[in-house]
Amino acid sequence: MSNADVLARLALSHLVEPANERIGRALLDHQADEVVAQMTRGRGHRLGLADLQERWDGRDCVASAQREWQQAEQLGVDLIVPGSLGWPTQLDDLAATAPLVLRSKGSIPIRQSAARSVAIVGARAATRYGCAVADELAATLAGRGWCVVSGAAFGIDAAAHFGALAGGGQTIAISAAGVDRPAPVANSGLFQRIYASGAVLSEVPLGARPNRSRFLVRNRLIAALTRAVVVVEAAMKSGARSTAAQASALGRIVAAVPGPITSAMCVGCHSLIREQQAVLVSSPAEVVELLAPVQTALDINGPTAGAQSDCRDVLGVLEADRPAGVDALGQLVGLSAPRTLAALCLLEQSGGAWRDRDGWRAANWGPGPLGSG
Amino acid sequence: MSNADVLARLALSHLVEPANERIGRALLDHQADEVVAQMTRGRGHRLGLADLQERWDGRDCVASAQREWQQAEQLGVDLIVPGSLGWPTQLDDLAATAPLVLRSKGSIPIRQSAARSVAIVGARAATRYGCAVADELAATLAGRGWCVVSGAAFGIDAAAHFGALAGGGQTIAISAAGVDRPAPVANSGLFQRIYASGAVLSEVPLGARPNRSRFLVRNRLIAALTRAVVVVEAAMKSGARSTAAQASALGRIVAAVPGPITSAMCVGCHSLIREQQAVLVSSPAEVVELLAPVQTALDINGPTAGAQSDCRDVLGVLEADRPAGVDALGQLVGLSAPRTLAALCLLEQSGGAWRDRDGWRAANWGPGPLGSG
Repeated sequence: MSNADVLARLALSHLVEPANERIGRALLDHQADEVVAQMTRGRGHRLGLADLQERWDGRDCVASAQREWQQAEQLGVDLIVPGSLGWPTQLDDLAATAPLVLRSKGSIPIRQSAARSVAIVGARAATRYGCAVADELAATLAGRGWCVVSGAAFGIDAAAHFGALAGGGQTIAISAAGVDRPAPVANSGLFQRIYASGAVLSEVPLGARPNRSRFLVRNRLIAALTRAVVVVEAAMKSGARSTAAQASALGRIVAAVPGPITSAMCVGCHSLIREQQAVLVSSPAEVVELLAPVQTALDINGPTAGAQSDCRDVLGVLEADRPAGVDALGQLVGLSAPRTLAALCLLEQSGGAWRDRDGWRAANWGPGPLGSG
Repeated sequence: MSNADVLARLALSHLVEPANERIGRALLDHQADEVVAQMTRGRGHRLGLADLQERWDGRDCVASAQREWQQAEQLGVDLIVPGSLGWPTQLDDLAATAPLVLRSKGSIPIRQSAARSVAIVGARAATRYGCAVADELAATLAGRGWCVVSGAAFGIDAAAHFGALAGGGQTIAISAAGVDRPAPVANSGLFQRIYASGAVLSEVPLGARPNRSRFLVRNRLIAALTRAVVVVEAAMKSGARSTAAQASALGRIVAAVPGPITSAMCVGCHSLIREQQAVLVSSPAEVVELLAPVQTALDINGPTAGAQSDCRDVLGVLEADRPAGVDALGQLVGLSAPRTLAALCLLEQSGGAWRDRDGWRAANWGPGPLGSG
């Protein structure tokens, strides 16, 4: 990924709302900077984007993109594009509706965290029962190394994030607003805690306001990013149910927690279970059991415990700004050159390290060539 | 069915505990009075019952049967044997473990009521939530014409019976003790109400005490008699779960009501649903929906609304003790002779009426040739 590509994708994300399939399809066949070049020359029709040409002409999307790029750098926001080291490859399942650019504000590597992630979603108008369940579920899963993903809304979402933080684990909030703009505002405190020990993700530009359609398309990101979606409380019609439906369509595991049949907030969960769109789960252990195949796949594809330990050691001495050679790194951590190289290669595969002709560096997930490409 | 057959089955039921497969298999090939005759002559081995012969010789089962017959007559207890008019044919699904004789004390025709019956079972140590759910479920189903069957135990069972009675509908208690012996004793008041507007059924002799093994085999009767079993609350190991398993094995519909995952009394229901041994139901309407195929079958096989009305009219004038002719009955209700005869034939099919050379009578479901065969 070149900076030009990131900038071009940013520009397109200032042109259309998320999940625009026309742009998405054009990007399956063409590089983003090529699309921008054609639009700039007034030739959008050549890419089947005639209707968007007029809108492009009326705005300066490239200037907006440049402004957002600078702002991202100032705020420490990562700009992650498809195909880059930081990109969570599960999002490719969205095909033409994959995000143009993911903005990430926080302190964890999104790609690795998303590989071991579970969504916990549910009603805003949740009951104490539902919040207690979401909290415990999230704390247990996070404590076992699963990253808890939710939407940072009131009710179940917030309980899930707080639970994961309380469990000492990772959590990702996928927002329908810009990552620098806590939404809802009343959850600003939660956002600060997530920035500090998790990450807030969004596909809309910095500063963007949330709106109804953004909430709806945001749900597909929660479904696509995670291995499983657990619905804790949901009314008959709810965003959580739509997230569950999208997760199902993407082949993700869908589970739902039951509750008293006398509670309106359980109707959605019961309906999902009754219609076999979700598996009933009644404990954190049952969620872990559902995730067993994912766990096994991660174990098989992942490094051995010894190699993981080497990776941790090497990662501890890798720097983002100062490239280093294999021998020097090995001496720093007390490992042989072959073991150091093996660890570096594993880190490279997982996106934790990268190399160029100057040597090895830690991936810093920031904007610019390292974070985005 | 002859009186001799009923008496013989009674005698055998004083020889063995319920669900004795050896006796059951012998009765698939031989008439009960033939089995008794062989045992009386010390030739049980000819029927593969050598081990039971000694026990037979040590008791006077025939005398016990005669005493029970007389007692049944005094107490108004019906003695219902396989193949008789009053026999609920679903029990034939039990094959060799079908009851030898069903004792019924109450005021409703068992065969017809069982044809439209639903079991509601669950924990003795039920919660207020579970009892409230069982009560409402039973009241609604009974109000819609479904006979609610349960085991008259504390907790969910009692709530189901009370709910059905409150709903103005029918209810059947299947007891592990003799029908004249309310068990548990503390539920005596409930038994009195069920005698008055429902029925208590048992396969053990009058006066018999309940015991652990009788409770277990009793559960198979609840499963076999009904169209569907709804489990409302159940611990991980429970009688209700065994009833559900037996219902499943008999091809009955099995449903379970969810509840808070924080309640130990919901563990059994959640496990049944999670393992797809039961369908989740969260309202009486959803139970009715599950029963729709049964309802349709009953509608197809049953008489039309007009014919039903004729049947009701004719049944209103039929007497158990005084036989009457078709013309006389038709004049009493203001129907033509053909319509009266059609109604009588339908009543005969359903077990509500019978005829001999003296004319038509109402089936009185009492002991003796009318009730038993």
